[in-house]
Amino acid sequence: MQFELTKEFISILQEFIENGLDNSIQEALHGLHPADISDVMEELKPDEATYLYKLLENEEAADVLIELEDDELSKLLSVLTSKEIAEIIDENVDSDDAADVIHLLPQQKQEEVISKISDESQASDIIALLQFEEGTAGAIMAKELVAVNINWTVGQAIREMRKQADDLENVYTIYVIDDKGILKGRLSLKQLLFSATSTKTTIREIYTDEDLRSVESDEDVEEVADVMQKYDLIVIPVITSNNLLIGRITIDDVVDVIKDEAERDYQMASGISEPVDSEDRIQQILRARFPWLLIGLIGGIFGALVINIFEHDIKIYPEMAFFIPLIAAMGGNVGVQSSAIIVQGLANKSIGLSSTGQKLLKELGVATLNGIILALVILAFNLRFGDSLALSYTVSIALFCVIIFASLFGTLTPLVLDKVNIDPALATGPFITTANDIVGLFIYFIIGRMMYLYFEEPEACNTIIELVT
Amino acid sequence: MQFELTKEFISILQEFIENGLDNSIQEALHGLHPADISDVMEELKPDEATYLYKLLENEEAADVLIELEDDELSKLLSVLTSKEIAEIIDENVDSDDAADVIHLLPQQKQEEVISKISDESQASDIIALLQFEEGTAGAIMAKELVAVNINWTVGQAIREMRKQADDLENVYTIYVIDDKGILKGRLSLKQLLFSATSTKTTIREIYTDEDLRSVESDEDVEEVADVMQKYDLIVIPVITSNNLLIGRITIDDVVDVIKDEAERDYQMASGISEPVDSEDRIQQILRARFPWLLIGLIGGIFGALVINIFEHDIKIYPEMAFFIPLIAAMGGNVGVQSSAIIVQGLANKSIGLSSTGQKLLKELGVATLNGIILALVILAFNLRFGDSLALSYTVSIALFCVIIFASLFGTLTPLVLDKVNIDPALATGPFITTANDIVGLFIYFIIGRMMYLYFEEPEACNTIIELVT
Repeated sequence: MQFELTKEFISILQEFIENGLDNSIQEALHGLHPADISDVMEELKPDEATYLYKLLENEEAADVLIELEDDELSKLLSVLTSKEIAEIIDENVDSDDAADVIHLLPQQKQEEVISKISDESQASDIIALLQFEEGTAGAIMAKELVAVNINWTVGQAIREMRKQADDLENVYTIYVIDDKGILKGRLSLKQLLFSATSTKTTIREIYTDEDLRSVESDEDVEEVADVMQKYDLIVIPVITSNNLLIGRITIDDVVDVIKDEAERDYQMASGISEPVDSEDRIQQILRARFPWLLIGLIGGIFGALVINIFEHDIKIYPEMAFFIPLIAAMGGNVGVQSSAIIVQGLANKSIGLSSTGQKLLKELGVATLNGIILALVILAFNLRFGDSLALSYTVSIALFCVIIFASLFGTLTPLVLDKVNIDPALATGPFITTANDIVGLFIYFIIGRMMYLYFEEPEACNTIIELVT
Repeated sequence: MQFELTKEFISILQEFIENGLDNSIQEALHGLHPADISDVMEELKPDEATYLYKLLENEEAADVLIELEDDELSKLLSVLTSKEIAEIIDENVDSDDAADVIHLLPQQKQEEVISKISDESQASDIIALLQFEEGTAGAIMAKELVAVNINWTVGQAIREMRKQADDLENVYTIYVIDDKGILKGRLSLKQLLFSATSTKTTIREIYTDEDLRSVESDEDVEEVADVMQKYDLIVIPVITSNNLLIGRITIDDVVDVIKDEAERDYQMASGISEPVDSEDRIQQILRARFPWLLIGLIGGIFGALVINIFEHDIKIYPEMAFFIPLIAAMGGNVGVQSSAIIVQGLANKSIGLSSTGQKLLKELGVATLNGIILALVILAFNLRFGDSLALSYTVSIALFCVIIFASLFGTLTPLVLDKVNIDPALATGPFITTANDIVGLFIYFIIGRMMYLYFEEPEACNTIIELVT
């Protein structure tokens, strides 16, 4: 079904491009979907991609343009003139996609391109869309939609709809508005087909306003994604604060939002601070990865300072060092698990209404069970293979304490961040791991000191107990 | 726009339920979307939810049923009789949703329910859908669709479509088939509206087969999701291996697949081995979290064994222990970053055609830069605040080596797993971290031993060099 992009195909194309065999290139691309052509272009060098792109017909060029990734698109746009860009997006591109393209241009070129668009309504739609802040419903909506007046007859409505024929290819819902342009409801294909013969019926008699959902243009796109997913909507109308119908958002645009969101959370959990993929330039990848590594490094320095406090203990009992990585790693692992469950629950709104106290209590239950089992496993190992009773008890007790602490800390942190309106995903990854490392080490060495005191110097221990009581 | 679920609302409902105030309950639920009612039910105790559910009308009950989460749904189904379930899903539910519900029942109850469904075509559709393996296109497709014969006239087609009125509410595309039922193309609303008056035109004259994409019923759902996303499809027809049209998949079902996939990768990276959320029972959460922690524990034991080898060094230079957590943590962090970039690239097919060698080379570039900067940072810190020259050099050289190793290992592992058809997401999270911990410690102590030999016992060092040369 899907076109398979291969290295052979790319190298043949590159040969064609090098030798300027325009006909062969066009033949090779014939029948490919614009999304496939954009994939091909992303595998070519920038000047090869530009060469190939200029061979496309205007309509196809437009379809390919909107499929390109932002950085690829920027490169291409920088070598096209304002006139070329204007011609491509003039009539062949939906207003939302056109606005996305123009958005990537420098301010001056934006104005040049818009001034060169001959279709006036397209130009004004684009200008209107460019006003919306990024990340709002307005910024991802399309202006193209089919709306009929509530007072029209069915016959009149069908006649009007035919006039808007260009916009009709992708109609999923026909919106019903009043004379002022206020959204009143919608009309399904079924209702239209049923009434098509009795063309005197008015729209008012057959439209529906049941379960009519809409979003305001300044609504956050993630909120739009939530509403569309929850109510299984394919398309949602966008309105102004006074209910004027101004656009629509289709689910394919929202799918991108959902994916981006999921990817961002995933990257955050993996310690990558901005969206990158393996095809990006080294500087970009470096910029995305370095910040978290620096945090890890600083965390490691604090860890070193903690151990420094216990240098004397290590000198006497060097085997204390054996389990430093285990304690640090387990604290990190448990903390990441705990925070991931909360972050995901917050992201997909499945977190429920239980109070923070209830959540912590449950987490405490899970942590206690995990802690007891794992502490017993490592105790059995140490008693069998180790030779220090003090160390064996230290590791198990410290592990249990670290697991409890890391669980509660990992659960609480994203909940608190969410309450103060900071992205809770920040809590996952290096942050939680690093914090747990440091606290875990402290717990480990404190318990170790007590244990060695108890097992190796019971008299000193007794003296202390006597002093205290 | 969205109904706001509050604790107050739930406690009022619970009071109504306790006192059997059926009218008040119905009033409270009036106007709520089925998705909202299912959210409400998920906040109630099982018997309260059942009580409330039984108050719903059949059609509403059906809509709510398909919105419930699987575990909530299972609980509800276990207290409903086969007859009750059959009545609810008889005519009010699309065949794919009905099959999903029945799928959750034990074998015997499945048969009972199906035998009690009075709508024969619904029953046979459900039986057909239950045959498809989970995770295939067939298992998520719906049988309901509108298809017209290529030889019909437009008038005939419209008449036939009216007969299928029930299925028409959610029509996004009208499929065109031949006498044998083979998929030939599709008809858009635009084409239908344009031709509606000249009802003698045949479908053959106006249908299109341009860019007609379909999937076979045994195709993997993740593949379906990829195709629909790539080509921005709202609905895709499902065919048999010999091109018979048998169903359709809409994007809202695919959105769930996309989300599940992203969540699974996220959970994998966080060390959670099966899908859970904070509302699940403690045993479930424990089962999902314990395996990775056990792997972490075993990794920690190996770490202890590595350090054990160097016990003598630690006894003499206890400050070597200071930077154990730093080396372990940095190896883990870098490895997780590297593997996350590859895993995400594989998941969203943005990984491109560059060879494994090229990817490793690029990764090496990023790692070298990161490694040099971070090594210099920690060197500066140690030279300023530390008091052992040997330790300062050890930490920086080891850190650099660990970053290089962890990057390459983190990049290579998911690529190799993918090649041998194992989910590359397995490579993220505890696996990479644990492996890097162990190797990192080894590198650290080996370098440490060499450095101390060089700085503190230069004579011994010279002897060795002489022996070697």
